[in-house]
Amino acid sequence: MTHNEILARVDHTILTTTATWEQVKKLCDEGMRFGTASVCIPPSFVRRAADYVKGELKICTVIGFPNGYNTTAVKVFETERAVREGADEIDMVINLGMVKEGDWTAVTEEIRAVKASCAGRLLKVIVEACQLTEAEKIAACRAVSEAGAEFIKTSTGFSTGGATREDVALMRTNVAPNVKVKAAGGIRSWEDAQAFLDLGADRLGTSALVKLALEENL
Amino acid sequence: MTHNEILARVDHTILTTTATWEQVKKLCDEGMRFGTASVCIPPSFVRRAADYVKGELKICTVIGFPNGYNTTAVKVFETERAVREGADEIDMVINLGMVKEGDWTAVTEEIRAVKASCAGRLLKVIVEACQLTEAEKIAACRAVSEAGAEFIKTSTGFSTGGATREDVALMRTNVAPNVKVKAAGGIRSWEDAQAFLDLGADRLGTSALVKLALEENL
Repeated sequence: MTHNEILARVDHTILTTTATWEQVKKLCDEGMRFGTASVCIPPSFVRRAADYVKGELKICTVIGFPNGYNTTAVKVFETERAVREGADEIDMVINLGMVKEGDWTAVTEEIRAVKASCAGRLLKVIVEACQLTEAEKIAACRAVSEAGAEFIKTSTGFSTGGATREDVALMRTNVAPNVKVKAAGGIRSWEDAQAFLDLGADRLGTSALVKLALEENL
Repeated sequence: MTHNEILARVDHTILTTTATWEQVKKLCDEGMRFGTASVCIPPSFVRRAADYVKGELKICTVIGFPNGYNTTAVKVFETERAVREGADEIDMVINLGMVKEGDWTAVTEEIRAVKASCAGRLLKVIVEACQLTEAEKIAACRAVSEAGAEFIKTSTGFSTGGATREDVALMRTNVAPNVKVKAAGGIRSWEDAQAFLDLGADRLGTSALVKLALEENL
């Protein structure tokens, strides 16, 4: 794939805790310039970013992020608000305590509840693969598929590890055919990006690729 | 102070993303046994923990945690829900983007809004000191004091650093006399604990001290 084709699969991302509107605005400018799939930004910037890009760029935000142990009611409320404020895509974190308790019914119901509050917007479900056993990863693929989400996403970028090639391959094999895979965390080069896409990822969460594109005057 | 007197100042804490009810229940048992000030737990466990301890132990939970960049509306909703589900104490994270933009009016208003939704419960405001400049730390002390919160708290434990002796001393000097200081993050010994208390901290967020007490058969 060309670098421009890769950029069209990128959720251009800033989720640092100290991010300012100046930084988010710059991210939006870059996203529009390079035609990224979206910008992925903190919830408190969604309204301003949506006003700023005026429909020229998709706005993605994060729910229950990054720890995932908010109540379902709070995740639902946060999703409804984000959609109302202009979010086009919702990246939610699952409740890892429920996972460790083996309560997959609760995990699936929570994803379903958030999906229902997305009002048709695209839902990506972050399973924080670095915290899961192999069996839990496979069960998570099943839960995300059954709950009707559009994407499974590997990582928040705030835990002990990011996307691995093994996890992306495992997810591509174990989610339903209509569920896509987003690799996030630690993607730093065009080679990384191409490798994840070759393994079946449809989206990449990163800020590094736009930075490379800028350096290369793409 | 005796170890038991120190334990009475401890918010006995589990905030790991993968915490299960078994672990939270054990934390509650330990909190009741040693008479800690509270247990500090993820929001999704508040209802169950409150039912379990039946008023014998204060339940503390975290809001907008740990990144702080949820919208004010979501922090308010999460607080209302936590209080309704049995939380006695609320530890909220400020919006660090607002801090970096120098918008202290917005920071103060957000704390005030969360305080109003606490229904008289105690509010601790986490300012994530490791991310702040000296001037920002002092401005944060002013904002927390003006907004009417009961405590300023140093750290989430999920950023680049925990409580430092310098920060606790700075906070004790710069908050209003009626505002207390909670030191959290990296407190691992009785000596640490005593040092923070001597510098003017009223609460300590840690799990290490109860662990020591258990080892010492206190």
